Amino acid sequence: MIDFFTESHSAQVVNSRMGPVVEPRLRMVMESLIKHLHVFVKDIELKQEEWDSAIEFLTQCGQMCSANRQEFILLSDILGVSMLVDAINHRRPPQATENTVLGPFHVDNAPIREYGAAISLDGKGESCLFEGTVKDLFGQPIEGATLDVWSDNADGFYDVQQTGIQPTWNNRGRFVTAADGKYRFQGIKPVSYPIPDDGPVGQLLARLGRHPWRPAHMHFLLTAPGYERIVTHTFVNDDPYLTSDTVFGVKESLIQNFAPTPTESTKWKAQFDFVMHQEASE
Amino acid sequence: MIDFFTESHSAQVVNSRMGPVVEPRLRMVMESLIKHLHVFVKDIELKQEEWDSAIEFLTQCGQMCSANRQEFILLSDILGVSMLVDAINHRRPPQATENTVLGPFHVDNAPIREYGAAISLDGKGESCLFEGTVKDLFGQPIEGATLDVWSDNADGFYDVQQTGIQPTWNNRGRFVTAADGKYRFQGIKPVSYPIPDDGPVGQLLARLGRHPWRPAHMHFLLTAPGYERIVTHTFVNDDPYLTSDTVFGVKESLIQNFAPTPTESTKWKAQFDFVMHQEASE
Repeated sequence: MIDFFTESHSAQVVNSRMGPVVEPRLRMVMESLIKHLHVFVKDIELKQEEWDSAIEFLTQCGQMCSANRQEFILLSDILGVSMLVDAINHRRPPQATENTVLGPFHVDNAPIREYGAAISLDGKGESCLFEGTVKDLFGQPIEGATLDVWSDNADGFYDVQQTGIQPTWNNRGRFVTAADGKYRFQGIKPVSYPIPDDGPVGQLLARLGRHPWRPAHMHFLLTAPGYERIVTHTFVNDDPYLTSDTVFGVKESLIQNFAPTPTESTKWKAQFDFVMHQEASE
Repeated sequence: MIDFFTESHSAQVVNSRMGPVVEPRLRMVMESLIKHLHVFVKDIELKQEEWDSAIEFLTQCGQMCSANRQEFILLSDILGVSMLVDAINHRRPPQATENTVLGPFHVDNAPIREYGAAISLDGKGESCLFEGTVKDLFGQPIEGATLDVWSDNADGFYDVQQTGIQPTWNNRGRFVTAADGKYRFQGIKPVSYPIPDDGPVGQLLARLGRHPWRPAHMHFLLTAPGYERIVTHTFVNDDPYLTSDTVFGVKESLIQNFAPTPTESTKWKAQFDFVMHQEASE
């Protein structure tokens, strides 16, 4: 044990101070955090005034947080950390549908709707029929899978961002598959929207020469007894922000084909099949 | 350029999104930050609920900050980052007095006092005479060096923590050296005290099996025309927390000998010589 702090052994000195009785996972996480944090500071030789700015930035993020705003989640999102944590914790067989971030706009207990029902209730936007099949790894349809779906409206806002303006449960619903594994609902073609950029994270994005936009997407949360939960989006295939999602949520396999349907009552049709895999413990 | 996020190339994808016009130093700092942050998350395979806890912890730190409390500085201190930044930015010839952290309790424009004057004004504590010489690298005394000094009182609080309770400028003063480079003032033997531990940083320290105490110390801020500023403490040599300062401020060279003086009017005498070096640009 080194008693006194030295630049060369800084991380070892800090880590050596932990007591003998520390929860093992916490010890592992903190030892790694301190090691990498010190390597970072040394790599760039962080200047005193840069450290001042970092303290000020973190403070501003914390003070921006409220019941309706989580600036540290936004920070994690734009640094790719949210997607990295999601990826690490949801490794799947290659055939299974990939995960992406849940996002801040999911609401529990959306109404259960009938096969083919509408979720768009405000009359805005370009109508789109979403349909497909929920299957297992062997291509067999899954009966009793629940698809919890949500998207923004044509103005780029979720209902919970505009309570009193949008109808309750606008562009939300839950659908349960029958024996054929099929789902179908009438929504709108989602539109791209910026993450809240009027705080310190927005200022950082601007200084990094990055825009705050997310490409248009439909959220899906799939559950089925015995299968691993899937939290994902499908992305509109002609969106200009597909390759520059500010939160890095896009995976190539999640880009959904939106086909115009000039002869039908719906303007667009979006076909996507989901593949679930069984839980590891089953 | 990789368009879509993948676990294996996560940091490259994030860094590739920076725009063409970014301030070069900011680009360098952010590229390094993102690289090391992603390596850390991968090394420990951060779990979703651990990420949740980290977001919550940072939020609590931000919400604890106020005009009188800076929880992120405390966090930086207990992770050894403050001392590391200080070390990187104040590399000196080995003979020169080492730096340590400024701390949150410095106040500008303390009264200039005469050689030998008292700084302890509340009648508390064990009297101690501080004396020594300010020299250059060649052992020559420096005339006109200003020593700005401050310490806690015998109850472990700085005057600014107890306005209305302690006399104004208690245990503070500025002294200017004459041609012999000598300084002398009458203070008290400082006492150890805990950093504020009633917030999230205090809770973290507890979970890490660490105490919140700083060993007793006298603060010195030395300036002299043509010489590099020194921000440092001297530490009481018999303090039980010398080898476990919660902010890692102790350097072996800064431990000051406090000698009992049974035959004199002062209870202790503390001798310490400071060595300043010329500014690089001179």
